[in-house]
Amino acid sequence: MTSDQPPAAPRSAVVAPDPRLVMVSREPLNAETPLPEQLGVITPTPLFYVRGHFPIPTVSADDWRLTLDGEVARPLQLTYAELRALPSKTLLATLECAGNGRAGLEPQADGEPWGYGAASTAEWTGVALATVLERAGLQASATQVVIEGADQGHVAAAGRTVRYGRSLSPEQARHPDTLLVYAMNGELLRPEHGYPVRLLVAGWYGMASVKWVTRISATREPFRGFYQVDRYVMAHPERGETWTTPLEAMRVRSLITEPSAGATLSPGTQRVRGLAWSGAAPIARVEVSVDGGRQWQPAALTSAAERYAWRCWEFEWQAAIPGAAALRSRAFDEAGNGQPVEPEWNKLGYANNAIQAITVTVGA
Amino acid sequence: MTSDQPPAAPRSAVVAPDPRLVMVSREPLNAETPLPEQLGVITPTPLFYVRGHFPIPTVSADDWRLTLDGEVARPLQLTYAELRALPSKTLLATLECAGNGRAGLEPQADGEPWGYGAASTAEWTGVALATVLERAGLQASATQVVIEGADQGHVAAAGRTVRYGRSLSPEQARHPDTLLVYAMNGELLRPEHGYPVRLLVAGWYGMASVKWVTRISATREPFRGFYQVDRYVMAHPERGETWTTPLEAMRVRSLITEPSAGATLSPGTQRVRGLAWSGAAPIARVEVSVDGGRQWQPAALTSAAERYAWRCWEFEWQAAIPGAAALRSRAFDEAGNGQPVEPEWNKLGYANNAIQAITVTVGA
Repeated sequence: MTSDQPPAAPRSAVVAPDPRLVMVSREPLNAETPLPEQLGVITPTPLFYVRGHFPIPTVSADDWRLTLDGEVARPLQLTYAELRALPSKTLLATLECAGNGRAGLEPQADGEPWGYGAASTAEWTGVALATVLERAGLQASATQVVIEGADQGHVAAAGRTVRYGRSLSPEQARHPDTLLVYAMNGELLRPEHGYPVRLLVAGWYGMASVKWVTRISATREPFRGFYQVDRYVMAHPERGETWTTPLEAMRVRSLITEPSAGATLSPGTQRVRGLAWSGAAPIARVEVSVDGGRQWQPAALTSAAERYAWRCWEFEWQAAIPGAAALRSRAFDEAGNGQPVEPEWNKLGYANNAIQAITVTVGA
Repeated sequence: MTSDQPPAAPRSAVVAPDPRLVMVSREPLNAETPLPEQLGVITPTPLFYVRGHFPIPTVSADDWRLTLDGEVARPLQLTYAELRALPSKTLLATLECAGNGRAGLEPQADGEPWGYGAASTAEWTGVALATVLERAGLQASATQVVIEGADQGHVAAAGRTVRYGRSLSPEQARHPDTLLVYAMNGELLRPEHGYPVRLLVAGWYGMASVKWVTRISATREPFRGFYQVDRYVMAHPERGETWTTPLEAMRVRSLITEPSAGATLSPGTQRVRGLAWSGAAPIARVEVSVDGGRQWQPAALTSAAERYAWRCWEFEWQAAIPGAAALRSRAFDEAGNGQPVEPEWNKLGYANNAIQAITVTVGA
């Protein structure tokens, strides 16, 4: 009952992606936020990155039902109006696709060749999953809470039709910041972001934040869905490892958004700007190197510390020497995590949080 | 030189207001946020209320210049690129038109009959005005800093053509959260919100946050512009007062956004939701009355405390008795300010922060 064998497929929604998005694939829709246009913490909803595995399902709020079953005392179905009438919560959170930065791995890993723009930040409003689980009476026999979306399709690597689904431990499912979200940046979700209801697992890579949620099943047995065990895991067959490690919290990371890689700049004062985030803890500091990573200087943090959202930072660079220059940034979170110099190569190309280097040219 | 006699008028911009906005007037564009659609703290930019006195000026970033003159050691002109290269800051702030809620005053006061939707919240990114004033060398002889917009038009009450302008004390002008803003909710300002550069005086009523800023003049003498002394002041001629008091910080206020006034509800548990804000301090608590204001019960605050942005709140109401019911909310800020039961009537109809009452019907 918690396999990923799907029922009949819903119709797919027609969405018109904002032309400013950086398109990765149209079918299914995968697109990056144009980071040089990201001026602040909030990503405007039309510029929020889109990650989909299948056609975007059309789910009407009127017809939507959330089924809770499995290891619960009171299996139930909720309508949209019933969900909206439950206590709500609003919080700011960055989501990053686990494959963000995959294109930076060498040799190239399997999967979509995401650049660095598969990360965005929004304000989310919804109902704590804990509230719904409490209504249903989650039982002690449950070891997993499986969240299924309405999106599905044939997966060649699986050799079958798969429905998107993920599981959480009861502890993570009951976390007060794991939400069944219905609004994003102050308005109802858009189809490509999970309308009418999606999950938000604040602080985790985006794969856990299942879109178009229609069913939640508490199970005794581990969930073996394709996107739980065959994808979104750190796999190291090159090391001879036969096991994999599931992805969870976003690793600490920083990116340079200004200037753009390859830009030619006038000599003189240049302001280098970027973003920094970590799923584990708020960002404590960001440092910048303009000499190939030998010396590091502190950047100014120009937005508030947030538990789950990225911070803006900037650095005043005296670009005095004409020619090529390599700019690097590195972030540290309040839990003491920092970024590695080299990415951790892994077969599926996830969680690349290595220090980014961009090269610019200072004119004469 | 700091009169509001304008130079030649710029062309007016063509904007297509979002059809969800509640239109107050089309020329000039004045429109309210549809508060029942406001789900969270952030107001999506297309739904942000618009207050204009004149046609929206077309100002290109390429041609834009910011002139700083008057009582400064180094008068200067900044280009847009020069402004963008200065240190930046990002913060969340609610703006409320001083006339918000004017329609609730009896007898009706002068001015646009705003309902309650002339208030919205956005994230703002820009340069501290202090940074620019420091560059120009604001002198001790300055008692006022006058900020002029590019918007202008004939004002019947003044009998002349007026340019929009406002002044701040040097202290408020140098406040670290008084910003020359170029981005709103993560992207460049839109024409109707002041593109390319507007002021944000965080915590104050919206009239201080001059849009389309082109000139900043430090003066020895008080500024006597129309929108400084003839509007946006508390005027009480009915009390025989010959003086007026300038409007500054937004008074503490709360609004009910759900259910809508006049709604018919099913008996049983109803969730009453709303927003609360204050320019003076973060919101400390919100209370709700369902019995005509006799008893008050605490509401839950469902978003984070913010210095300048409103908080979401909600209250679980057991709507047991069929018939009409009056719902009220009242907010208190951390400085101890609360809302009055009756509005302070004033000739120009500003700063109505009285406790709002809405009537709903509970069905049988």
